[in-house]
Amino acid sequence: MKIELISIGSELLAEKVNTNINLLAEKLATIGLAISRQITVGDNPEEIRQVFTESLARAEIVISTGGLGPTFDDYTRGTVAKVLKKKLVFSREVLGAIVRHFAERNIEMPKENEKQAYILDGAEVIPNKIGTAPGQIITVKRVKCKVKSEKLRESSTFHIPPSTVVILLPGPPREMLLMLEEKVIPYLKEKYETGLTRSVTLHICGLPESEIDEKIHPVLEQEKKTEGLKFALIAHPGTVDLRITLSGGDQMLLEQILKKTKNEIYEILGENIYGEDGQTLEKIIAELMLKKRKTLAIAESCTGGLLGHRITNISGSSLYFKQGVVVYSNESKIQVLGVKSETIEKYGAVSQETVLEMARGMKNLARTNCVLAISGIAGPTGGTEEKPVGLVYVAVIIDEKEIVQEYHFLGSRLEIKEKSITTALDFFHRELLK
Amino acid sequence: MKIELISIGSELLAEKVNTNINLLAEKLATIGLAISRQITVGDNPEEIRQVFTESLARAEIVISTGGLGPTFDDYTRGTVAKVLKKKLVFSREVLGAIVRHFAERNIEMPKENEKQAYILDGAEVIPNKIGTAPGQIITVKRVKCKVKSEKLRESSTFHIPPSTVVILLPGPPREMLLMLEEKVIPYLKEKYETGLTRSVTLHICGLPESEIDEKIHPVLEQEKKTEGLKFALIAHPGTVDLRITLSGGDQMLLEQILKKTKNEIYEILGENIYGEDGQTLEKIIAELMLKKRKTLAIAESCTGGLLGHRITNISGSSLYFKQGVVVYSNESKIQVLGVKSETIEKYGAVSQETVLEMARGMKNLARTNCVLAISGIAGPTGGTEEKPVGLVYVAVIIDEKEIVQEYHFLGSRLEIKEKSITTALDFFHRELLK
Repeated sequence: MKIELISIGSELLAEKVNTNINLLAEKLATIGLAISRQITVGDNPEEIRQVFTESLARAEIVISTGGLGPTFDDYTRGTVAKVLKKKLVFSREVLGAIVRHFAERNIEMPKENEKQAYILDGAEVIPNKIGTAPGQIITVKRVKCKVKSEKLRESSTFHIPPSTVVILLPGPPREMLLMLEEKVIPYLKEKYETGLTRSVTLHICGLPESEIDEKIHPVLEQEKKTEGLKFALIAHPGTVDLRITLSGGDQMLLEQILKKTKNEIYEILGENIYGEDGQTLEKIIAELMLKKRKTLAIAESCTGGLLGHRITNISGSSLYFKQGVVVYSNESKIQVLGVKSETIEKYGAVSQETVLEMARGMKNLARTNCVLAISGIAGPTGGTEEKPVGLVYVAVIIDEKEIVQEYHFLGSRLEIKEKSITTALDFFHRELLK
Repeated sequence: MKIELISIGSELLAEKVNTNINLLAEKLATIGLAISRQITVGDNPEEIRQVFTESLARAEIVISTGGLGPTFDDYTRGTVAKVLKKKLVFSREVLGAIVRHFAERNIEMPKENEKQAYILDGAEVIPNKIGTAPGQIITVKRVKCKVKSEKLRESSTFHIPPSTVVILLPGPPREMLLMLEEKVIPYLKEKYETGLTRSVTLHICGLPESEIDEKIHPVLEQEKKTEGLKFALIAHPGTVDLRITLSGGDQMLLEQILKKTKNEIYEILGENIYGEDGQTLEKIIAELMLKKRKTLAIAESCTGGLLGHRITNISGSSLYFKQGVVVYSNESKIQVLGVKSETIEKYGAVSQETVLEMARGMKNLARTNCVLAISGIAGPTGGTEEKPVGLVYVAVIIDEKEIVQEYHFLGSRLEIKEKSITTALDFFHRELLK
């Protein structure tokens, strides 16, 4: 089944990063559905019209995000109405919800927001509980179009579905996500869930993508033998994901093959796999720390606070994470953590010796069981021949155990920060497991 | 002129966020070019073939990213060769560069990487200085296709360019960006720069999107009068961008109208505009701090380190940013910053009183001129009726001046963290300017 996602908004073709694709993909995957194509267009009625027309000719499900706002450059409602040849109907109920939204926040409703109370004739309204633009679901008959050209027949209209579900969602991720969870996914699940696709993603740390590829090559050879079995490698800063997808056959068989394949990969990559699917290093560490009743403090230099940010993205992290310091200057390393000035003079601020003294100082200060400390050169300036940009030291203390590791990362300032954090968390996780 | 971007990679239709769109858009904008459509497809040769065929029928410039890697799921080279009816030719020179890439890193070259030395017949190679896959540029004649259907004629093939430039770039952002800067942008500039589009983006903080829309409505009315003048509002966590674009006419006139429009917006929004184009709050603050020879220390609670991360994303921030603490527990607030336990008992950890004592404690500890402190409830748990999720206090100290502000933010844990940081930086920036 073909599912196409149309993302609408000039900002998405400029500076704004489109995370709605990933949010949608994640939710669809829970019912065995996958996006086959995603198209982004600006706030341009003509482009929007073309893209909807084309997607309607190809896909069973067309989902759009954005362009439902109240402002001058929101064109989705009107354009889709034209493409589908549907009227826009005023909904007293929707207007009531919008009026209430503003009243609850003690804000006078701007006149512009009235636009948002118009609904495609025949569409089901998806209420917006946290914003103003409602979502809409409508099912339309197949788009008729005779195509003579061989090229275009092949390229876009070979497969013409009998009917298409069109779902319009607002652009703000929080609003879109709530509508997905409460309405869209249950709706699609009832209508389309095949139950015949299963997938698992393995998160890998400590090996480069090409080395993983080489190591798992024998298992990849199965792809050719087992119908419907697919592998994909996805590199992130500091980690690589291996996604195994299997479709077709009955459910028992799917689960069996998937489990067997997964076990084979585990045998090859071993402890380099730190988690599966929705697990992240910070989540796994949080669970382990709570289970082991340990507490953590951190000392960061080159990562500037990003380690603390990652750790505290987990709700409830305050149960084990007690405090952190960002000791950016040498003086603060000395004054706050008691690093000896001779150590910095002799070995440098980026050295095994300094990072270990940072970690020990943090342990004295915070009295936690565990400490994680990072010192390095994030660049692009500040590197030397002896200590190049990307040189990073990480110290881990768990109770009486103290270990320091040296790493060399490539990339931009931000990439080096991100790789440092992920690698440090992976290092800490492995030591926690020992 | 139509420019289409094809993003290739199953991970982009799953968990990986596609930032290449934004990087490309930013670079193209510098020579007055804009992406008109962006399409994402998975690692699926048939989808890749369809998408290239369609884009070639619409656009003058087709740029793809991804699918040039050495692994089993990289299909771009082979598929584009089929679509363009070009042979893939082995390049001894490219293989030499790949071999050197591995030799310099003391890694044995995996056999898989040989694939990357094959180039479309007639294409210009873009060397990859930091990775292995080279980029490619090739100009092809117009795609002939007769279309009988009115619908499809309208929707996708009305405009057929006489020739199309096809540019294949690797997916890793760092590699893609370097190729853009060194080769692709200079190449397109020479060939296509019109010099007839100018745009400016104003960054706004402290006002919601709909209020900005209402305030600038009189200026927006100009859009209808002045041909080629366009406005777009783009909301980010804590900030809104207003992009003004003007095209057509001669350069002097463009600059004049743009300046006049910008001034009108400044008169309405005043100090809510903190910067333009590439400026960010952290960059502007860094410049001001260095100019005023001031130093900064920070104390964070609910933001967990994200404030330090944002500040230290600026290379050279160590010249003014001295240290930070993440005082996540009450004990650390008391012990590290000297917050009185009575203050926390009486007013709570999230209160005007506590955040001010945090800031004062940080100033005593770090002996900097300036301090920024944040305490709040990022949620989703931990809120009460009196102190709901999203309640955030920010304290600013600049020399003898001490000010505390209260904010209420909506959103997810991450959004509340991000809004807190942006708002705190904006608050600090305004006080610095006074």
